[in-house]
Amino acid sequence: MALHAVIMAGGSGTRFWPASREQRPKQLLRLAGSQDTLLAATVKRIAPLVPNERVWVVTAGRLLQETRDAAPALMPAHILGEPKARNTAPCVAWATAAILEEDADATIIVLPSDHHIADEPAFLAALAEATTAAESGYVTTLGIVPTRPETGYGYIEFGTSIGSAKSVKRFVEKPQLDVARSYVDAGNYLWNAGMFIFRASVMRDEIAEHMPDLAAGVTRMLSATDPARRALAIAEVFPTLPSISIDVGVMERCTRIAVVPADIGWNDVGSWESAWELASKDSDGNSLRGNALCIAGANNLVWDLRTAPHSAVLAVVGLRNMVVVFTDDAVAVLPREFAQDVRKIVEALRARGDSAFL
Amino acid sequence: MALHAVIMAGGSGTRFWPASREQRPKQLLRLAGSQDTLLAATVKRIAPLVPNERVWVVTAGRLLQETRDAAPALMPAHILGEPKARNTAPCVAWATAAILEEDADATIIVLPSDHHIADEPAFLAALAEATTAAESGYVTTLGIVPTRPETGYGYIEFGTSIGSAKSVKRFVEKPQLDVARSYVDAGNYLWNAGMFIFRASVMRDEIAEHMPDLAAGVTRMLSATDPARRALAIAEVFPTLPSISIDVGVMERCTRIAVVPADIGWNDVGSWESAWELASKDSDGNSLRGNALCIAGANNLVWDLRTAPHSAVLAVVGLRNMVVVFTDDAVAVLPREFAQDVRKIVEALRARGDSAFL
Repeated sequence: MALHAVIMAGGSGTRFWPASREQRPKQLLRLAGSQDTLLAATVKRIAPLVPNERVWVVTAGRLLQETRDAAPALMPAHILGEPKARNTAPCVAWATAAILEEDADATIIVLPSDHHIADEPAFLAALAEATTAAESGYVTTLGIVPTRPETGYGYIEFGTSIGSAKSVKRFVEKPQLDVARSYVDAGNYLWNAGMFIFRASVMRDEIAEHMPDLAAGVTRMLSATDPARRALAIAEVFPTLPSISIDVGVMERCTRIAVVPADIGWNDVGSWESAWELASKDSDGNSLRGNALCIAGANNLVWDLRTAPHSAVLAVVGLRNMVVVFTDDAVAVLPREFAQDVRKIVEALRARGDSAFL
Repeated sequence: MALHAVIMAGGSGTRFWPASREQRPKQLLRLAGSQDTLLAATVKRIAPLVPNERVWVVTAGRLLQETRDAAPALMPAHILGEPKARNTAPCVAWATAAILEEDADATIIVLPSDHHIADEPAFLAALAEATTAAESGYVTTLGIVPTRPETGYGYIEFGTSIGSAKSVKRFVEKPQLDVARSYVDAGNYLWNAGMFIFRASVMRDEIAEHMPDLAAGVTRMLSATDPARRALAIAEVFPTLPSISIDVGVMERCTRIAVVPADIGWNDVGSWESAWELASKDSDGNSLRGNALCIAGANNLVWDLRTAPHSAVLAVVGLRNMVVVFTDDAVAVLPREFAQDVRKIVEALRARGDSAFL
């Protein structure tokens, strides 16, 4: 009963513009105070439990080469490129079926590629507990112990104990602030961080039960064993699969579902604000990279990410709580509190047909 | 009695960094909402009174070519390059002596090269009045009617009328705020904007009286008529001339001195803040240039001044009262209220030996 990992590495590359682009989404960036990309850090983090040869990555077809380059220790055949984005249920179904071909007795850890986890020992311990629940037949999730009444995440309400895991009473969508506050106060709500652990055969059966169209599609995709014919089948069938999340398609309909509360220093690296929080900073709270000069300012992220940093200089004076990012072909400036609005730049560039900068 | 103009075009290029540089100081920039550089605008502005062939420019030797390029309608021989910066008295003395060689009966208007004047008819009318005073023997200045208790300028206190000009009671240095307020309230103080009008022979005599070393030096500089020998004499002698302003060296010691009050929409274009004030702006108060995108922001100067503006994009979100300038080799970001502090960037670059960006 070997452990496999599936790292979900899609992403449209808008929230970290101009560092992120369609061809260089967030998981391919060095954002969390590390020399590694978020994807490489995810592979490293899981390595004590899952060796590289059992790590799979599902990404967008257009990112196949970039993803292989970013995770060179993984087997190229284990990096799957989706012909079209279809949300997470087809992603999980495909990877599960592919792993079952190699290991009928597999247990699978599904992880996002673009989060940060500060407390790796606690993360690995939570995964070990979740694996125990999964091996006894539960579709298991890691639920993050909330640290604030965040309205940007879904929540999981848990109930009674199942070994060292908990039963799941319900999944709830992103709440209003007052509702989120009541969840945090109640103490039995966790953030849904998109980390799942299950026996591959259990997931196959759950998909067959709750999403028979998806199951049938994946069977057709993989019916050919000849690589060229299989590639053709994937290209034909995958885009027709139902676009639905694994949460809605399977998790919320499962009866044998468990959650392991995890207090692991999780951060979804959701915006430049998160990047500033995670970055190492000087005594004035400034995070500087490249040929950046920050005078009389505090609590800024000032990143010169150009490939030839000494060909130019990025200099700021008197800034507070600002994000300034300089790449080879763009400059973005915004207050940290406007970090979510960087996508408005991407929308404006798209609206005016400026695809070179997307 | 022909009118000549001498445009003083020195400048170290720090206050408009990164647009201004040692080799591209302020007067060579397009800063005042015009397609012209400040220098070219100065030449144009004086043209109704002084034809191009009687306009002289004194600049730094290192800027001789750039200045000729920026003022191609002027005679190359009328663009004088100082071997070393020696403040304004040697500049005025040299230009006066050079003009006297061509026109013993000249009257000279001395103007800074890097100011903006909104009301050109009023400016020309004030100059005409000042010329009348000058031609009757007065060293005459234009004094700007103050619009605020500015502490960054020197003031001129005026007294009784001399024709349509006024007598000068005294020049005063940059005052404290309460003193500046009392000057504005008193009504008989004007800003000293560095604009002087005099008969060349009067200035020659005043310099000989009050600064005999300077007069002797200029005589030595111009004693040779052979161009090569004269160039050598200038290179040898000019750096030894006393470094002193024409205000201190001559104006404050003159007995026959007059001032013409001028209400002409004068702006010294002293900082990025002035550039924002003078720029044409959209309905949100934003001044945008080049490939700049400003979303959900107001009252910003966002200038992409690169020579190939479509090779990159400058995008800002949620900014208020900020200056963002993008050139071929630098980005500067600062709040408008920190506009004076841009020179701190230049100082920091100099301190770390980054001369490429100076």
